[in-house]
Amino acid sequence: MHFNLKLKEMNKLLIVGTVAFDAIETPFGKTDKILGGAGTYIGLSASHFNLQSAIVSVVGDDFPQEYLDLLTSRNIDISGLEVVKGGKTFFWSGKYHNDLNSRDTLATELNVLADFQPKVPQNFKNADVVMLGNLHPMVQSSVLDQMEAKPKLVVLDTMNFWMDCALEDLLNVIKRVDVITINDEEARQLSGEYSLVKAAAKIHTMGPKYVVIKKGEHGALIFHNKEVFFAPALPLEEVFDPTGAGDTFAGGFAGFITQSENVSFENMKTAIIHGSNLASFCVEKFGTERMLKLNKEEVVARLKQFKSLTQFDIAL
Amino acid sequence: MHFNLKLKEMNKLLIVGTVAFDAIETPFGKTDKILGGAGTYIGLSASHFNLQSAIVSVVGDDFPQEYLDLLTSRNIDISGLEVVKGGKTFFWSGKYHNDLNSRDTLATELNVLADFQPKVPQNFKNADVVMLGNLHPMVQSSVLDQMEAKPKLVVLDTMNFWMDCALEDLLNVIKRVDVITINDEEARQLSGEYSLVKAAAKIHTMGPKYVVIKKGEHGALIFHNKEVFFAPALPLEEVFDPTGAGDTFAGGFAGFITQSENVSFENMKTAIIHGSNLASFCVEKFGTERMLKLNKEEVVARLKQFKSLTQFDIAL
Repeated sequence: MHFNLKLKEMNKLLIVGTVAFDAIETPFGKTDKILGGAGTYIGLSASHFNLQSAIVSVVGDDFPQEYLDLLTSRNIDISGLEVVKGGKTFFWSGKYHNDLNSRDTLATELNVLADFQPKVPQNFKNADVVMLGNLHPMVQSSVLDQMEAKPKLVVLDTMNFWMDCALEDLLNVIKRVDVITINDEEARQLSGEYSLVKAAAKIHTMGPKYVVIKKGEHGALIFHNKEVFFAPALPLEEVFDPTGAGDTFAGGFAGFITQSENVSFENMKTAIIHGSNLASFCVEKFGTERMLKLNKEEVVARLKQFKSLTQFDIAL
Repeated sequence: MHFNLKLKEMNKLLIVGTVAFDAIETPFGKTDKILGGAGTYIGLSASHFNLQSAIVSVVGDDFPQEYLDLLTSRNIDISGLEVVKGGKTFFWSGKYHNDLNSRDTLATELNVLADFQPKVPQNFKNADVVMLGNLHPMVQSSVLDQMEAKPKLVVLDTMNFWMDCALEDLLNVIKRVDVITINDEEARQLSGEYSLVKAAAKIHTMGPKYVVIKKGEHGALIFHNKEVFFAPALPLEEVFDPTGAGDTFAGGFAGFITQSENVSFENMKTAIIHGSNLASFCVEKFGTERMLKLNKEEVVARLKQFKSLTQFDIAL
């Protein structure tokens, strides 16, 4: 028997974000330098979907081969992950307070990140979805400049730091994206509005048609014009380490959109749930530990929990 | 043609809670003494359902006839609302901070509430549902003592004040109820657990089979053994005055359960949504103003918003 089967090529997700060392302290313990970075968490999260992904980032030659192998073992293309000879990898260290909702940054060593010039691999210049992880907005813009085909969706994550010290660059890149993901305080800072409904409306006028507001343990909202959808965070017995939860959320969102080739608002609702679901695992252990051991059965079982957590019958 | 139609009597909801004067200050303005009190908000909220209700409470003879008429105009039985001759009505005054999530109490004048002995009207001693609004736990217990038939459901609301100064009485009444509604900080205080999942599990062991944890603008959770359901608060452009939101929530919950005669966990999910829906109106104006003008069409339209806010499709 002979099959003339033409397999459709998997959709492509291009990720830009830090690949880094983190040292974390929580009320439950502390770590030495471990694998971290927004690009890492986004990539690991997105690897739960049927897609091709690549990370554009930079590390020093102190970055262990073992960590690089770990990324490639997840089918993440790292040809755009520059290794700077004699350079040191970006390092972040932080200590979480008792409630895990706030943290102090103990150290930020930019190292090779200071002069990072992103280079998009040729075969990802036509990526279907681009996920711009939290980085200098000029780096985010540079990635978009290199695209040869207009992506179906561009998602941008950022933080208050860039609002404080690179606002003009940030506003320039925000103009160019479809979806922005920020936390509630950042949405308030960026918009000057306290009400998240008003903040989202104002951020719409800056460019993004979709505004995702992350509220940590209080879930996430996605606004699209007058429409709004809410995904709760799963109530957990223990939150061990919140590091990477926001990036894991973004990676799940972008990953599901890439796989499903559907950028409707209805599909984004499902994408937000996938993101929340994956993030709920991330916080259960230090760093990437939980994400590295996560299997499909666990993911599906918890998606069922999300359904029973939120779905109700009402006669109208 | 002759119909021999036998109408089923409506189910009964017995409410105990303060009927009071409030003076409120928010970033948007301030009020003189206006109608307030947990019993008032619960009663107004529950009046959106098809049921018979009665409020057991106490006021002074400074309480305007107009306010009493307002309650009876909503079909609320006030034969258990004692008017103390020469007495002064309970008065509370508070000022909300800019974020509306916290407030300072400016005045608490117990007045007639200090010696309140609740008297359940005879025809409500067989009420289907009892809603014990926030009051001294001895008063709440006394209402239960007067019941002649076991209610299908007893719901209790309380606050940190009673945990601080009447814990033993509180634990005694908590033992006797099916559902407790408290906020997140109170759940942590009552249980000694930071995680709300663990807090709910511990409060289960104190008696209530259902633990509702109110998180204000962050929604509400209901726990039942290992099951959990979450209702978000509707994202609003403006929150004007949070006073009474928790009581309105409880009144909607208890009202829907009373009407539907169904104390299953699935039905409680719907009840939580009804409570959240009604509370979303309460906060839009000062005091009871919005609740007094609320019509059925507005309620149904917003329930549809709750559906689109939370319902999603996911293939599992």
